[in-house]
Amino acid sequence: MNTPIPRTALQLRSLVKRSGELEVSLADVEVPKPADDEVLVRIEATPINPSDLGLLFGPADMRSAQVGGSAGRPVLTAPIDPKHLPGLAGRLDESIPVGNEGAGLVVAAGGSAAAQALLGRTVAIIGGAMYAQYRCIQAAQCLPLPHDATAADGASCFVNPLTALGMVETMRREGHKALVHTAAASNLGQMLNRICLKDGVALVNIVRKAEQAGLLKSQGAQHVVDSTSPQFIDELTDALAATGATIAFDAIGGGKLAGQILGAMESALNRNASVYSRYGSATHKQVYLYGMLDPAPTTFSRNFGMAWGIGGWLLFPFLQTIGPAAAQKLRERVAAELKTTFASHYTQVVSLVGALQPEAFGRYGQRATGEKFLINPNATN
Amino acid sequence: MNTPIPRTALQLRSLVKRSGELEVSLADVEVPKPADDEVLVRIEATPINPSDLGLLFGPADMRSAQVGGSAGRPVLTAPIDPKHLPGLAGRLDESIPVGNEGAGLVVAAGGSAAAQALLGRTVAIIGGAMYAQYRCIQAAQCLPLPHDATAADGASCFVNPLTALGMVETMRREGHKALVHTAAASNLGQMLNRICLKDGVALVNIVRKAEQAGLLKSQGAQHVVDSTSPQFIDELTDALAATGATIAFDAIGGGKLAGQILGAMESALNRNASVYSRYGSATHKQVYLYGMLDPAPTTFSRNFGMAWGIGGWLLFPFLQTIGPAAAQKLRERVAAELKTTFASHYTQVVSLVGALQPEAFGRYGQRATGEKFLINPNATN
Repeated sequence: MNTPIPRTALQLRSLVKRSGELEVSLADVEVPKPADDEVLVRIEATPINPSDLGLLFGPADMRSAQVGGSAGRPVLTAPIDPKHLPGLAGRLDESIPVGNEGAGLVVAAGGSAAAQALLGRTVAIIGGAMYAQYRCIQAAQCLPLPHDATAADGASCFVNPLTALGMVETMRREGHKALVHTAAASNLGQMLNRICLKDGVALVNIVRKAEQAGLLKSQGAQHVVDSTSPQFIDELTDALAATGATIAFDAIGGGKLAGQILGAMESALNRNASVYSRYGSATHKQVYLYGMLDPAPTTFSRNFGMAWGIGGWLLFPFLQTIGPAAAQKLRERVAAELKTTFASHYTQVVSLVGALQPEAFGRYGQRATGEKFLINPNATN
Repeated sequence: MNTPIPRTALQLRSLVKRSGELEVSLADVEVPKPADDEVLVRIEATPINPSDLGLLFGPADMRSAQVGGSAGRPVLTAPIDPKHLPGLAGRLDESIPVGNEGAGLVVAAGGSAAAQALLGRTVAIIGGAMYAQYRCIQAAQCLPLPHDATAADGASCFVNPLTALGMVETMRREGHKALVHTAAASNLGQMLNRICLKDGVALVNIVRKAEQAGLLKSQGAQHVVDSTSPQFIDELTDALAATGATIAFDAIGGGKLAGQILGAMESALNRNASVYSRYGSATHKQVYLYGMLDPAPTTFSRNFGMAWGIGGWLLFPFLQTIGPAAAQKLRERVAAELKTTFASHYTQVVSLVGALQPEAFGRYGQRATGEKFLINPNATN
């Protein structure tokens, strides 16, 4: 490959100052030379996932964000309420690179056979610091994309696909036979729906708008419940009784939804119970909160017996739990079904400079279901 | 043994009528003849545990309770709000015996060697229907008490001791090194404190009154935090940092306490954290709710990262999880330390008739920390 590699290139950095200010800027950083077992990837597509926003903007008040600097080196600043600073103690005054995952062309490789084999291939990678023009990484960590796949096809090939597969895998490993998902019309939710349809796993989709229910049904979803319906609890209980779902993955986090799901699971289980148990159903009911779309406190009445749990769920600890061999199997499935089951759809593609413009972060920063941005750090605009 | 065995004897029964009325009465039931592998126990001591009250009184309004019937066969009645009836569907119009555990003399035995070996022994038993003058049970389920122990010594030998041991065992099995307990001045809490002192396990006791803190400290407790203190969160965080406790057992259930414990655990873990993690500490923090002293909804802010869980905890599923051999080891420890670590203290001893008098149920029905009643079904009053 004769791609000319520059000496320095752009990398997006997020900085929380002790004074209570967020600063997001583009740094010129040296392009590293890959070590023996490493490759250098020219990043061509890297998504802005909800899971990136915490590191990117922290708890800053983005409605008060300003953009200064120059046209080619914009600097975004936004105030942070001092009450949040103790929780950010570990990152204060440290300029941090951002971007969980991405894809691009391997333009240089170390001497090892594994590294050399990737030269000229388009690969998907994960590991942070992807909002950058170049990223040096272990060859073993690259997922080579099929030859007909573009970087954009493979840019979101880890976080959402592995999270969706991880939910189904968690369901199986914890002994449940069907599952519930909230904010179910998201990119991730649509992917989960395709996995479940393909694998014959019953899925109860909970959405917050009628049009989202329509979207999922048009994609073959069998059980879709709208939480704004006046009969929500009854409709949810019917769907839970029909599917036998006793585990849920909730992206909302705040409010009453998690408890309502557990209560409806208990009602569904008790519909056919023949013996009274003062401790409720003996079947374990579980809700995992994996997102925070609603930052309000979580509240629940304990009307679901004693066999229940609510907890946090995060992709990377899950992958560690199942171990490298099982994780590799999941990754291989993603690569094999990249353009079907695991296809992502983007609202807009922006450059690094474009990502720091108000018309961009005003949209992707809102965490609205349906908005998804892709950055191409090597775009010329 | 030449104890004369009557043809019928008293058994306490709880009945929830479809009309919305609780009726607790004493039935004359036939005294069974033990089968080959069974023994007949004359119950001499059976405690009223918080875990018995749900079956005994259900959600009846006990302030409006009336006692009718005759002096020797009192009948307690109390109204039940109709909104509770759907949740009681499984027990409506069915007269149910009550009483989780008890102890007494084996007065008859089946032909098997195991049953015969127990004749004349004082044994502790568990399995329901203990608020009765006689209870027939499998010989294998009996725990023979040491020869110097009375039935009263052994009456509470399962629920509280195994629950307290189960908490320490759960702590170990789930990889924690110290634990937190709430409503910590209860009979169970004092027992847990003695176990932890003996086993060298650090315990953070949370109480709701200054005099309860004093009681536990007088019994050697090292970490006692009063939740009514204005510095409660800071004091709790200090105790968690000092002990490294990352698992809690909460008897309260409702309100903010469970979330406050998780938040304080996270603060304690982050005190010494050297690297910023946007997902919070990677150490799993767990709170098990095993009681419901506060029936209000549970509410928490998710300010403790993603590695956390809240769930129900119940003795019998726990014993099933660890299996018969491990459970037997716990029971043997209880028998060996019956008069020390696992000693229970009672406020009052009553007969079956006495248990149905207003001056009795007006006290034990309140679930107040420190009140504990013992029934002697064969008392003559």
